[in-house]
Amino acid sequence: MPLADKTHLRIPGPTPIPPRVQWAMNQPMIGHRSGECSRLVVENSRRLQPVFGTDQPVLIVTGSGTSALEAAVVNAVAPGEEAAVVVTGAFGDRFAKIVTRYGITLRRLDIPWSEACQPEVLAEFLQQHPQVKAVFLTYCETSTGVLNPIRELARTVHQHSDALVIVDGVSCLGAVDCRMDEWGVDIMVTGSQKALMLPPGLAFIAVSDRAWEVIERNPRSRFYLDLIAYRDNLTKQTTPYTPAVSLLFGLKEVLNLIQEEGFSAIVARHRLMMEMSRAGIRALGLELLAPDAFASPTVTAVKGGGQLDVEAFRKELRQIGVVVAGGQQHLKGKIFRIGHMGYCDPLDVLTVFNAIELALFRLGVPVELGSAVKACEEVWANVSRTHHGSAQ
Amino acid sequence: MPLADKTHLRIPGPTPIPPRVQWAMNQPMIGHRSGECSRLVVENSRRLQPVFGTDQPVLIVTGSGTSALEAAVVNAVAPGEEAAVVVTGAFGDRFAKIVTRYGITLRRLDIPWSEACQPEVLAEFLQQHPQVKAVFLTYCETSTGVLNPIRELARTVHQHSDALVIVDGVSCLGAVDCRMDEWGVDIMVTGSQKALMLPPGLAFIAVSDRAWEVIERNPRSRFYLDLIAYRDNLTKQTTPYTPAVSLLFGLKEVLNLIQEEGFSAIVARHRLMMEMSRAGIRALGLELLAPDAFASPTVTAVKGGGQLDVEAFRKELRQIGVVVAGGQQHLKGKIFRIGHMGYCDPLDVLTVFNAIELALFRLGVPVELGSAVKACEEVWANVSRTHHGSAQ
Repeated sequence: MPLADKTHLRIPGPTPIPPRVQWAMNQPMIGHRSGECSRLVVENSRRLQPVFGTDQPVLIVTGSGTSALEAAVVNAVAPGEEAAVVVTGAFGDRFAKIVTRYGITLRRLDIPWSEACQPEVLAEFLQQHPQVKAVFLTYCETSTGVLNPIRELARTVHQHSDALVIVDGVSCLGAVDCRMDEWGVDIMVTGSQKALMLPPGLAFIAVSDRAWEVIERNPRSRFYLDLIAYRDNLTKQTTPYTPAVSLLFGLKEVLNLIQEEGFSAIVARHRLMMEMSRAGIRALGLELLAPDAFASPTVTAVKGGGQLDVEAFRKELRQIGVVVAGGQQHLKGKIFRIGHMGYCDPLDVLTVFNAIELALFRLGVPVELGSAVKACEEVWANVSRTHHGSAQ
Repeated sequence: MPLADKTHLRIPGPTPIPPRVQWAMNQPMIGHRSGECSRLVVENSRRLQPVFGTDQPVLIVTGSGTSALEAAVVNAVAPGEEAAVVVTGAFGDRFAKIVTRYGITLRRLDIPWSEACQPEVLAEFLQQHPQVKAVFLTYCETSTGVLNPIRELARTVHQHSDALVIVDGVSCLGAVDCRMDEWGVDIMVTGSQKALMLPPGLAFIAVSDRAWEVIERNPRSRFYLDLIAYRDNLTKQTTPYTPAVSLLFGLKEVLNLIQEEGFSAIVARHRLMMEMSRAGIRALGLELLAPDAFASPTVTAVKGGGQLDVEAFRKELRQIGVVVAGGQQHLKGKIFRIGHMGYCDPLDVLTVFNAIELALFRLGVPVELGSAVKACEEVWANVSRTHHGSAQ
């Protein structure tokens, strides 16, 4: 058994909780209709705006990330309407499942599970489906480590239709640049347990003026996930139903951490961790699932096969003290995924590669110990040198 | 300003978190598909069964209590069907709102907001509405402190119809006797933040075999709150979507606390706290909202009026360090409510009355200091004497 509580959780969510956030969640419980809770709700909502890149209020829903995906669907699309879902992996597929479940005509654009959707592909698809009222996109596809070019895709949607642009930002918001208003994203949703460094249990949703008009006209039945109730209650400084108060305590501290590090530094840190991870994997002679152009700063997927049995490898890594994720759906047993987001820094990436080298060695996969770590360190060293140089 | 963090939160939920539960929630985050999380989900579900009085698995949903009320509605009643909702207060009213929102024909039985529904009243109502497919009941009506006689009401429903019996147990499960299977309750729901001593964010739902048949036939669209997905995933030792993991850590410790104290002792403690609270209020010459026969062991509502301005009184109490709730909807400004459930013991009830006496004195309401506390202590003393006697 590894040393208790010493596990390095490097899956693409849930992610480790920073000590200050953990401590913040230990405050004594408060009433959800108290002034203190109102201040928490209002301030957290306001301070989440730069993470989304929006001037719209950020709504706080108590639920898993999937509750936010569903909220986007049931609020924005009426029964019988058409919606396009761009499926680049398991979470695009989840959007498609929700859309189908709710009696919406699904126009599904399947992209191979290792690639991003390219604007010209979406443009052609939208020309074939001029009736779609909403286009569902995934910012970071957690199952593949692919980052879709949301800015360009949103522009493409607006060029070809009046459809709403709805984006699942669950596994990257808080780690990547997001300019929802500027890019013309109409609904952006995310969850608490990924780059936002909280336990699972909260979902966050921002909505454009254009989308609110659609939502207000939408006759579809909804109650717990009725976004109008969240918006109207937020103007009264509260939530419609008892929120997950301890996570609101934690969120306040998360937003302090983000403010202290600075959002551009956070984005740069995640980019560096991505580059280190990719260099390390390449140095080991392993194959990355996503090409560089589509790589996500929050999660890196690596192909198994040949001498690398990914499930045996993940088990060996766990013994050493590092937990990485496997593949989902048809990628199960075929890839492993390293999460490098939230409470994770370049040293943590080195730790992951320390463990990866050892695990490969133990499993008899040919590996030169230190080689991946060297490659990672070189990436980091060069970034440091650049920074040092630019400071002179 | 009162001493920081020394507030006694005595509202009917959220309720204070026991230190051991707080500590348990500080465990390092784990993956939601890990063996450790599977064990948490399965064990927590199993150990919740005695709280519900059921052999059915208890489903764990990440959401507010309202998400569980909605889950009951959307899973059990198809569009166009008829449902009866017994409204004894604000939470019965919430059931009615959800039912209406989902295109179900509402048969609403309004009971004055201070009384329980009597079986003969329900029987007559059901005879007038023979088509109802489900009857929605509230076990403890949080807004009035009334406990509805669920055993008798369930029996009445079964005598007069084949309708499902669906019960909101949010503000009492874990504090009162509940024998869901024996009483013939088909769906029982509760939340984490009341007698179960956790922060808000989890909801718990148990379903009878009879109700599962209805749920499986129900064509209504649902996704996040589709109970079939929770049931099927529980048999695979997991949840369909990322659960609020830190609350699952806490729940395990809550169930340890319940096991150590013993469920019958917990029920007796809540009953004692109710009797003490009622004796204290009477000693002050104030008027209880609910008669003794309908009183809930978890929350006591008290009428204001005359010399007692309840909002000024609640403010004064807060200054002293005790937080009680006000009234909801048409009872706003007319009552205050003392929560005495979960991590609350008879000494805490005495503390509440210490503060109540002082607050009344400060507001110039005639009060004999010590009189309410004396009455509370007498109740407790008599119970202690009885116990002492019976042990000989």
